Amino acid sequence: MIDLHLIGIGTGNPDHLTREAIKALNAADLILLPRKGAEKSDLADLRRQICAEVLERPVQVVEFDLPRRATDQPYLGAVADWHDDIAQCWRTQIEEHAPQGGHVALMVWGDPSLYDSSLRIAERLGAAGLDLRVHVVPGITSLQVLTAAHAIPLNKLAAPVTITTGRRLREAGWPEGAQTLAVMLDSGGAFSVLDPEGLHIWWGAYLGMAEQVLIHGALADVAAEIIDARTQLRAQHGWIMDIYLLQQIEHP
Amino acid sequence: MIDLHLIGIGTGNPDHLTREAIKALNAADLILLPRKGAEKSDLADLRRQICAEVLERPVQVVEFDLPRRATDQPYLGAVADWHDDIAQCWRTQIEEHAPQGGHVALMVWGDPSLYDSSLRIAERLGAAGLDLRVHVVPGITSLQVLTAAHAIPLNKLAAPVTITTGRRLREAGWPEGAQTLAVMLDSGGAFSVLDPEGLHIWWGAYLGMAEQVLIHGALADVAAEIIDARTQLRAQHGWIMDIYLLQQIEHP
Repeated sequence: MIDLHLIGIGTGNPDHLTREAIKALNAADLILLPRKGAEKSDLADLRRQICAEVLERPVQVVEFDLPRRATDQPYLGAVADWHDDIAQCWRTQIEEHAPQGGHVALMVWGDPSLYDSSLRIAERLGAAGLDLRVHVVPGITSLQVLTAAHAIPLNKLAAPVTITTGRRLREAGWPEGAQTLAVMLDSGGAFSVLDPEGLHIWWGAYLGMAEQVLIHGALADVAAEIIDARTQLRAQHGWIMDIYLLQQIEHP
Repeated sequence: MIDLHLIGIGTGNPDHLTREAIKALNAADLILLPRKGAEKSDLADLRRQICAEVLERPVQVVEFDLPRRATDQPYLGAVADWHDDIAQCWRTQIEEHAPQGGHVALMVWGDPSLYDSSLRIAERLGAAGLDLRVHVVPGITSLQVLTAAHAIPLNKLAAPVTITTGRRLREAGWPEGAQTLAVMLDSGGAFSVLDPEGLHIWWGAYLGMAEQVLIHGALADVAAEIIDARTQLRAQHGWIMDIYLLQQIEHP
């Protein structure tokens, strides 16, 4: 029997860790530490830093390379195949390093429930016959770090919020009836498809990290500035993670 | 100058606290600890328990009673008046206990950015002329504890999510175009306004606490069970906080 713990670690600042996450890491028999390739090496470094800071007993930490997603196929199909490959990769590591079973921990960027594939990959392991119990430890998401950094509420008073992706915003435009829209996983400037009139944006990159950058203002005024900043920062750091909140401003 | 720290503490389990929250509490000159009256005394007790567990130096902790919201007026107007009253109440406590300024901390249930009034109340203090800088420490929300407890993703693969309130669901029904709907602040059974066909629900009460209760299933099958459980639990504990996720299930 494997107890698989998917542990949200927040977004780049070891201080985002909860006491629950720290306890779960210390209770693990095996911590799997994925590497994603040189361009995101900061993320593997963060996981190593967390282990160094919070482990109070010797826990076996195994690093492994993740497969890459095919970029020459339709998106959803390529993602499904990629998740199959990652599931096989986890299974190989677990069978090699925890052959008797036990508590296996994975540190997940943000929160395992929001735009993360770990739960879907774990489901594949169960479907493939591994005797598995899945436990989730929630973590601070980049959306929460964004609103905290700007010191703004996510929702208007008693009003709904929609969370979507850059891809969806490009395809479907502003969601019917939404006043507040959080956009994650944007490959850059999806807000350009919108009429900026009456929209305000709060944008952040590298949220929670030393490199954090924030921009906010009327979308009409700051859209070009955000696109330029994103291009420059990506060139400078070799990678970028950013997110933004859009809100319809009421006119008195 | 007052540095006001709004610190998310999660939803009832001191292990939801992040390292950042613990550092901010320990760095405070004054912690304001609101009481909401006997029916929610568990919440004040939780804040006291957190102080007892995480403070590593003597910090002045001041308890005070919050005013009550008028229940005989239209909702949004009554909420605005209530926030004015709470702002005055914070100001009185700050001027009495931190007359020289300094770092004042408030422990906020969940995350200060999601369906919480602290940021709007702090804005009133600034508008009233208090020399104030507001800092936000994000915390784990009940929505994250719900999805973690059920070990489910919040979003379908690459798909949007809408977060709304029970009040809004009753008034406006299922939001146009939504597949996944998280409902917070429901006074009970707002999902009854929906046609349950094709909807699945994941419900939780007292999330993160020892009293936690979870129910999930096809909405048509478990709606009555949830409403009954809610009534019984509320009678048993004297109060209830619950939340749920609704999702349209695809038929193959």
